[in-house]
Amino acid sequence: MKLYISPRAPNPRRVQMFLAEKGINDLEQIPVDLNSGEHRSESYRSKSPLAKVPALELDDGRVLTETRAICTYIEGLYPEPNLMGIDATERAFIEMADRRVEWYFMLPIANCVRHTHPGLATLEQPQFADFGASQGEKMLGTAQWLDGELAKQPWVAGDRFTIADITAFCTLEFAKLMRFKAGEAGFVHLQAWRDKMAGRPSAQI
Amino acid sequence: MKLYISPRAPNPRRVQMFLAEKGINDLEQIPVDLNSGEHRSESYRSKSPLAKVPALELDDGRVLTETRAICTYIEGLYPEPNLMGIDATERAFIEMADRRVEWYFMLPIANCVRHTHPGLATLEQPQFADFGASQGEKMLGTAQWLDGELAKQPWVAGDRFTIADITAFCTLEFAKLMRFKAGEAGFVHLQAWRDKMAGRPSAQI
Repeated sequence: MKLYISPRAPNPRRVQMFLAEKGINDLEQIPVDLNSGEHRSESYRSKSPLAKVPALELDDGRVLTETRAICTYIEGLYPEPNLMGIDATERAFIEMADRRVEWYFMLPIANCVRHTHPGLATLEQPQFADFGASQGEKMLGTAQWLDGELAKQPWVAGDRFTIADITAFCTLEFAKLMRFKAGEAGFVHLQAWRDKMAGRPSAQI
Repeated sequence: MKLYISPRAPNPRRVQMFLAEKGINDLEQIPVDLNSGEHRSESYRSKSPLAKVPALELDDGRVLTETRAICTYIEGLYPEPNLMGIDATERAFIEMADRRVEWYFMLPIANCVRHTHPGLATLEQPQFADFGASQGEKMLGTAQWLDGELAKQPWVAGDRFTIADITAFCTLEFAKLMRFKAGEAGFVHLQAWRDKMAGRPSAQI
C-alpha cells in the first residue's frame, strides 16, 4: 500500500497519527505538493478524482480517499489497539464524537484559516474573509463544549483513547494558523488534554 | 428508542429513509421545531448538547447524535438489508462514497441554501450571501463527478444500494431550495438515478 500525504495539512496527519498509534511504521508515504497544485493534476486525479489528500492506494490498485474511511480500512487490517469501537454500539458512539469534532470544530477552524490566511489563497479561491472570521467565532462554542467534556472524562469520546482524540489534536495543531491556543482562550481542560496528547509518540510525526 | 427529527430538514430525513429501508416502521418520532429555536432549548440540549437534530434516545437514556453514527447503531441492531458494508473493507469504501457526497455535495449545497435563502435566516446568522453563491457554484464540480459515477455504475457506491444513495437523494431533495435540478443542469445520469430513487417506498416519507 501507498499513502499520499501533504506535509502540514491536518487530514493526512490524522491518518499518519492513526498509523503510528497502530504501530505501523513501514507504509510508503508519498508527498503531494498542494501549493503547486499537484493534487489537481490529471495523474493524481486518476487516483483521487475529487483531488483530495490523503489517499491510500491498495496493492490491488484500488484507491481509498477520505481520512475516516482510510482509518476504517486500516482498523480492519490491524485491529489492535482498537481505535474506532469493538462493536456496532461502541463504533456508533465513537463515530458521534469524531464527527462532532470534525463538523463543528475542525470545519469552522478550517473555514477560518482557508478564508482569512494569505498563505491559503492558492488553495481557497475565492476567499471570503468575513465568513472566515465568523467561523473563527463559531468554533468557540464547540471548544467550550469540548472543554466541558474533557473536564468530565479523560478522552474526547469517553474513558479511552480513540480516533476522536486524533481528530481533535490535529484540529488544534491546525488552529495555530489562526493563532488559537486553548489555554489562552480559557479552555483549561482542553489545553491539559492537548498537552497530554502532545506527549504521545504519535504526535511527534 | 425515540428519534428526534425536524420535518423538511435533510439530515433527519436520511435517518428516516435508512429506517424505512430496514423495514423499521414503529420507532417513535418526535418533531423538534427548528424555526422556533426548540433545538437550542435547555431541555433539548440536555439530550443533544450541540443542538443538533436528528438525535436517537436509547432505552437506557443515552443519546446518539450525528446522522451517520445513528445509522451505524441501527445497522448493528438490524443488520439486514446491509446498507453500510458487510466487512471492514466494504465499510471503508461505502464510507468513502458517503463522505464524498456529504462533504463535497451536501455541505456546499447546505452552505448555499443557508447563506442565501431568506427562509433560513433564522437558522444561519449571520448569512454571507456571496459565500453562499460561491458554494452553489462549487457543488457543480461534485455533481459532475457524481454524474460520471452514475454513468458507470447503478448506485452511488457501486453495484448495490447503500447509505450513500440515501445521503445523495436527501441532498438533491434539499437542493430544490436553491432551485437545482440535476437534469436541467445537464446531469442526465444523476437525474435518472434520482428518478429511480424517488420510486422507492423509503422516498415517500
